[in-house]
This record gives sequence, C-alpha cells and structure tokens, in this order.
Amino acid sequence: MGSSTRTLKIGIIGFGTFAQFLAKTMIKQGHLIRATSRSDYSGFPGVHFFRDMEEFMGLEHDVILICTSIVSVSQVVKSIPFHRLKKPLLFADVLSVKEHPRQLLLQEVPHDSDLVCTHPMFGPESGKDGWKDLPFMYEKVRVKDETLCSSFLAIFENEGCKMLEMSCEEHDRLAAQSQFLTHTIGRVLSEMEIWNTPIDTKGFEKLIQVKESSTRDSFDLYSGLFIHNRFAKQQLHNLESALERVKETLEARINNN
Amino acid sequence: MGSSTRTLKIGIIGFGTFAQFLAKTMIKQGHLIRATSRSDYSGFPGVHFFRDMEEFMGLEHDVILICTSIVSVSQVVKSIPFHRLKKPLLFADVLSVKEHPRQLLLQEVPHDSDLVCTHPMFGPESGKDGWKDLPFMYEKVRVKDETLCSSFLAIFENEGCKMLEMSCEEHDRLAAQSQFLTHTIGRVLSEMEIWNTPIDTKGFEKLIQVKESSTRDSFDLYSGLFIHNRFAKQQLHNLESALERVKETLEARINNN
Ligand SMILES: NC(=O)c1ccc[n+]([C@@H]2O[C@H](COP(=O)([O-])OP(=O)(O)OC[C@H]3O[C@@H](n4cnc5c(N)ncnc54)[C@H](OP(=O)(O)O)[C@@H]3O)[C@@H](O)[C@H]2O)c1
Ligand SMILES: NC(=O)c1ccc[n+]([C@@H]2O[C@H](COP(=O)([O-])OP(=O)(O)OC[C@H]3O[C@@H](n4cnc5c(N)ncnc54)[C@H](OP(=O)(O)O)[C@@H]3O)[C@@H](O)[C@H]2O)c1
Repeated sequence: MGSSTRTLKIGIIGFGTFAQFLAKTMIKQGHLIRATSRSDYSGFPGVHFFRDMEEFMGLEHDVILICTSIVSVSQVVKSIPFHRLKKPLLFADVLSVKEHPRQLLLQEVPHDSDLVCTHPMFGPESGKDGWKDLPFMYEKVRVKDETLCSSFLAIFENEGCKMLEMSCEEHDRLAAQSQFLTHTIGRVLSEMEIWNTPIDTKGFEKLIQVKESSTRDSFDLYSGLFIHNRFAKQQLHNLESALERVKETLEARINNN
Repeated sequence: MGSSTRTLKIGIIGFGTFAQFLAKTMIKQGHLIRATSRSDYSGFPGVHFFRDMEEFMGLEHDVILICTSIVSVSQVVKSIPFHRLKKPLLFADVLSVKEHPRQLLLQEVPHDSDLVCTHPMFGPESGKDGWKDLPFMYEKVRVKDETLCSSFLAIFENEGCKMLEMSCEEHDRLAAQSQFLTHTIGRVLSEMEIWNTPIDTKGFEKLIQVKESSTRDSFDLYSGLFIHNRFAKQQLHNLESALERVKETLEARINNN
C-alpha cells in the first residue's frame, strides 16, 4: 500500500448530508477533516468546522473536496478565495453530474493544482452497511502528483468500492439513463402518492423502495441531475414517448377485442 | 388440520406457465391433477392431460381451477360443457383481475356448484423458492360446502402464504395501483431499451429487475390487467399526469435559474 494509506488533510466545502456521510468513513480511516459550508455545522464529531471561508482556505490542505449541491456549485466555486492557498494541492468533487463541475473546475482552479472528478454511486442509505462492491467513478482530469491522487482514491478503494475510471462525458451519458431515470420514476411515484397495499407483489415492493430512496434526496439534487446533465432531457423525452407507445399498444388491444 | 389436508381431485382448465407452476406444488402435496388446455401438454410429469374438453368434464372432480389468460377467459368459460359434470363441485380461478371472472363465473357456473375467486400474488419467478409469506387473495363468492373450500385454500395456507380474504372489487382497486402500475413501468422501461451500466445505483438495479420480471409475463397477461380491471385506466392516467407534473417542476426550475 505505502503512500496510498497516507494520512491526508482534507478540506470539505459544502458539509450537507452527503459530505457528512463521507466524512465519517474518512475520519475512521484516520484522515484529518476540516469543513466549511453555508450553514453552521460546528460541533460535528471529529470535524474542525470553519464558518469563515477565508480562514478555511488559509489552512494547509492536501485535498479540497467539493460537496455542494449541483445547482449551487458554480456560485460556490466562483466565490472561493483561491489566492489564500498555501501550496498547490488536489481539488476533487463528488457531484452526481460530471461534465459541469469538470468544466467549472478546469476554469476556476489555479493551474498548479490538480483535479480529479469523482462520483461515488451510493449514498447514506445504499452505503449504510459499508461501501463494498459499490461503484466509484472517477476521471483524472489534471493530475501531476499521481501519489497524492492515488492516496485520495485509496479512501474508496480501501473500503472495497468498485473503482471505475471513466470520462465525465461517458458518466453523464450512462447516468442519464440509469440514475436520472430512477430518480424521475421515484418522483413520479411519489407524485402519484402510491403506498404499500396488503397485496403487494415483489415487483411493486421494489418500486416503493425506489420511490422512498429518490425522495430521501433533496430536490436540489434531483433538479441538478436534469439541469446539468446534457443527456437527461433526451431521457425524459424517451420516457414520455415510451409511456405513450405502451398506452397506444393497450388501446389498440382494446379495439381489437 | 383434519379435512384441510384431504387429497383433492383438481381439474385445471388452461395449462400454461402459471398453471404448471401451481400444479407442481399441488402434486407435491399429494393432490390428483388432471388438466385440459388449448395446446397439448400431454406428458407433463404427474398430470393426466386431456385433449378433449368433453371427456375432461366427464371426470369426477372436487375442484375445477380456471387458469386461462384474462383476455380469453370469457370465451373459454362459455364453451365449458357444464352438463357433463357428475356432481356439484367447487369452481376456482387464479386470474390476476378479479371482478371480471367473478361476474362471468356467477353467470355461467351451475347454481349448485360453489365459487371461490383467488389471486396468488406471485409467479414462477417470485415464488421459485417457496410461497412462504407471499400474499394469496381470495373471495368466497358462493360457498355452501365450507369444508371443500377450506381444503382448497389449505393448499396455499400450508405453503405459508399470507392469506387475505378481500372482495374482488377491493382487490382490483389495489392491484391497479400496485401490480398494473408495476407492469406498466416494466413495459415502459423495456420500450426504452434500458440496460445495466457499469455505474448502476442500487435503485436502478431494482428498476432493471422490475423490467425483467414484467416482460417475462405474456402480453396477454399485461393487457388483461388493463382491459379487465376497471380501475386501471385511471391509474394509467395518473401515471401520465404525474410524469407531466414532474417535468413541469423541472422546467420551472430551469427557468428560475
Ligand atoms: N446524497 C447522495 O446520495 C449523493 C451521492 C453521491 C453524490 N452526491 C452529491 O453530493 C453533493 C451533496 O449532496 P447532498 O445529498 O448532501 O444534498 P444536496 O442538496 O445536493 O447538496 C447539499 C449541499 O449543498 C450546499 N448548498 C446548497 N445550496 C447552496 C448555496 N446556494 N450556497 C452554498 N451552498 C449550498 C449545502 O450547504 P448547507 O448544508 O451548508 O446549506 C449542502 O452542503 C451533491 O452534489 C450531490 O450530487 C450525493
Ligand atoms: N404468471 C404469473 O405470475 C401469474 C400469477 C398469478 C396469476 N396469474 C394468472 O394465471 C393465468 C395464466 O397466466 P400465465 O402466466 O400462464 O399466462 P397467460 O398468457 O395469462 O395465460 C396463458 C393461458 O391461457 C390460455 N389461453 C390463452 N388464450 C387462449 C384462447 N384463446 N383459448 C383458450 N386458452 C387460451 C393458454 O392456453 P395454452 O397454453 O393451451 O395455449 C394458457 O393456459 C392468467 O389469468 C394470469 O392472470 C398469473
């Protein structure tokens, strides 16, 4: 293992649900976690929280991890006081869309710092019993310090994640037809106000689970999957027209009866 | 237990996938199974198959179990030579809609025979590891011989099914928002041609399972769920308008950005 188990100083920007979930495992692995966020999370166990972004950026970090919502990331990153940085380091993000933060970070992050875009394909619910075999996608967008980047990725590797190196574009293409579609169906089921019945089939029980896990995530997250993944609109359209075709087939069947 | 473990002579009409699945457990329990069907299933292990409906109806039966497709049941039941029956007996059905066969059987079955409408809420896939805790819905539509009816229901009770006595109307109301909806989403996903990706979330894996199990059933079954459940049309409409509302919420979010 060597350097891959090195202790890292990780600074987290955006310390909501998902960041807190990640932080617990990072702390367990022995890393030093500092965080800043719009809201006040002082007192979160094991984390040194800074209300002041200037002060936070002036600390010595190995990695700065962006964990804000998709829809706020542009505003958040553009307001980071990069000039306060003590030394070049690794910037990473965990947003559920990837082309958008990739482009933004390439634009905003100082050129002497490295960049890795990642998406852990799990959350506080699906990852509550550990991260073993859960997919972790990443693209090394700009990496000069391979050792540092490996040490960061090792956080997920050491927990047993299925590590997938993939371009941000490929991620967004696949995630539009898997994750965005799943969230959309979950939100639709929630709109329909469907509930368990005494005569649920196994299949329906699965839909109820999809509904519950989709609506556990924020609407910011869901709308981010749509607004900032350029492949999502097409999938929404595909869903609508597939439903239309299924309906037409049923109606044709009635008329032939 | 007593009479409830009595050996029954069960005559099955419609010996397709689901009837064959049920027959295996009935044979294991020691019941005597005869069957007739449109297609020839002679040689099915443990079952005495009759190509000729007249001959089949002339046998001595305790129970006649209707297992044809929803869309063919009316034609099939109307062509049964009831005059060949040796004695009054119990008619039962397992169709996935319930008001339709209830009404049909009340009309067609001789008045001295009993009637129980049932729906085992599982199939060859979800019930492949046994029927324990799987829901079994039934309505005793017209039962004079309680002992005979109990003996028939005991087939499912003895396997550990969750026995649910419920009116056919209530069943159809609930099944439209659970089973029909699940099949519709499964068929829509199949129309969209979605497949596993390397970055599947747990939720998306559940949708893939819903797609696969829905399309394993015949299109006759699916269209029957729609055509012969009077609550299904409303659910299809609810699904469409819920999707429309989710889409509008996303679009409103874009415009506010
Ligand atoms: N939840 C998951 O399962 C999961 C899985 C993989 C990746 N992700 C990604 O992880 C990130 C965080 O997700 P989440 O589940 O915690 O919920 P989220 O609603 O996507 O994001 C919440 C975070 O964004 C911050 N934020 C929101 N609006 C802001 C604004 N206008 N200005 C500054 N900060 C703002 C919040 O800060 P405050 O809390 O300080 O208000 C909080 O830290 C997202 O990019 C998401 O796509 C989530
Ligand atoms: N599959 C399940 O998981 C499940 C679960 C619960 C209840 N059910 C119910 O069980 C019944 C059978 O289901 P299934 O899965 O076997 O498939 P299905 O496609 O619904 O029905 C197939 C059966 O219908 C017969 N049939 C179809 N068209 C016919 C016609 N025009 N004339 C005469 N017979 C005709 C077939 O006879 P041949 O095979 O001889 O052609 C076969 O026995 C259905 O009512 C279904 O709703 C199914």
